[in-house]
Amino acid sequence: MGPAGTFSEEAAIAYDPQAQYAACPSIPAVAAAVEQGKVDEGVVPIENSLEGSVTFTLDLLIHDSNLFIRHELVLPIHNNLLARPGTRLGDIRVIHSHPQPLAQCRGFLTERFPNAELVASLSTAAAVEQLKKSDARAAAIGTLRAAELYGAAVLARNIEDNPNNVTRFVVLATSDRPPTGADKTSICFSFDADRPGLLYGVMKCFAELGLNLAKVESRPTKQSLGRYIFLIDVEGHREDPKVKTALDQMKRQVSMLKVFGSYPKAKPSAQ
Amino acid sequence: MGPAGTFSEEAAIAYDPQAQYAACPSIPAVAAAVEQGKVDEGVVPIENSLEGSVTFTLDLLIHDSNLFIRHELVLPIHNNLLARPGTRLGDIRVIHSHPQPLAQCRGFLTERFPNAELVASLSTAAAVEQLKKSDARAAAIGTLRAAELYGAAVLARNIEDNPNNVTRFVVLATSDRPPTGADKTSICFSFDADRPGLLYGVMKCFAELGLNLAKVESRPTKQSLGRYIFLIDVEGHREDPKVKTALDQMKRQVSMLKVFGSYPKAKPSAQ
Repeated sequence: MGPAGTFSEEAAIAYDPQAQYAACPSIPAVAAAVEQGKVDEGVVPIENSLEGSVTFTLDLLIHDSNLFIRHELVLPIHNNLLARPGTRLGDIRVIHSHPQPLAQCRGFLTERFPNAELVASLSTAAAVEQLKKSDARAAAIGTLRAAELYGAAVLARNIEDNPNNVTRFVVLATSDRPPTGADKTSICFSFDADRPGLLYGVMKCFAELGLNLAKVESRPTKQSLGRYIFLIDVEGHREDPKVKTALDQMKRQVSMLKVFGSYPKAKPSAQ
Repeated sequence: MGPAGTFSEEAAIAYDPQAQYAACPSIPAVAAAVEQGKVDEGVVPIENSLEGSVTFTLDLLIHDSNLFIRHELVLPIHNNLLARPGTRLGDIRVIHSHPQPLAQCRGFLTERFPNAELVASLSTAAAVEQLKKSDARAAAIGTLRAAELYGAAVLARNIEDNPNNVTRFVVLATSDRPPTGADKTSICFSFDADRPGLLYGVMKCFAELGLNLAKVESRPTKQSLGRYIFLIDVEGHREDPKVKTALDQMKRQVSMLKVFGSYPKAKPSAQ
């Protein structure tokens, strides 16, 4: 996902250093490229430890794609202050980036550049590319790889306020993985009524079998406020007997169930 | 929240047409103004029927504020294509807005302006204000009120792709409301362990008392990926005997419980 120089490209390289990479301009474009067979696998962000879920990816999995999650990986996210070579810190009057890294570096920016104008861009790579068109007083927040790609100088490294900044990426493909013994299964489901205890009933299926839920999340149905689609990550593979039993039991309670796939559980990445 | 001409200003006027309004540049600034007694109440968006939760508001309530939710209201969200007076549809080459309305109007923009450049701004009001600095080929997506305030012409109304576009706003204050008989209570909680069935145990307290959960949501703790703070909206007032019992029971199971307040349940707004 994204032009070269985004965090998703870093994740794709970490996932498969030998692969050939194709850049897609958006999360739906990544899914379309996999669905149309233009690429074998697509890497998109799904969750950040500070910001929460990447709702574009969740909504794609729920509404707009039948792709499977084949793999997950967790990567530390470091933001860097970049500028055209020759720019000094004291020169900077304008700072470009995507609203998310601007927010993640708010403490650094407020302390060091209290009077700088913050300008939103559509991606961190676009912000770094923007530097070429700017005069020498502009900086951007982006990856080290973007600095390399767009010929920018690195003025400050790791400027994020909270060091616990990691993003979980998923690899989308037309099939998921056979069991490895340490897997996770992602599903979503909804109800066609709004009665007390419906979600509780589903969670009971998992709890009574001793299955740990790694994540419970809700997304709007997009039809009416207050009606939700629930997303659950359960530890285990969808072919494990216990997980299979829980999925069979819950099927009778929900109006929609979609299994996004089973895949090896990521080891948390070193910071 | 936001400069004049944002949806939050519309919500503030709908909530109390007689009030004096003060604009704050961000969601944390609204909370600070209420906490410092500069204003009595603050209006911020908390959830959109298409995009889901406004995570800034959730994280403020969880981590950075002891304010109460005193009221909620639900407002239809209409996006409009605005430009400097005299601009014709055929002239438009650049369209400014916040990334969210740009995404919400993607169908309209793709069909009518397949070649226009989309430019991100920090708010819809900022996008409309931006028109003053632009040449005649620019348009912005924003509210009718912003058109009025910044002297822009309305080229097309209600250009959002999905008509089920409503936003829920909450009114923050230093206290919540006494029971009205049709209330809702918002809480958040977390666990200091990651064992199967912990969330299930809490939901059991509510389910066994027949209390309906209007919403279940999770947010990152910001300390470690995979650890969450759960947010629940339960129907009823925190002083209702059943809600009180459930809250007392769950206190023994969680490591942190914060009650954001009880307030009258909003009637869904007409579209």
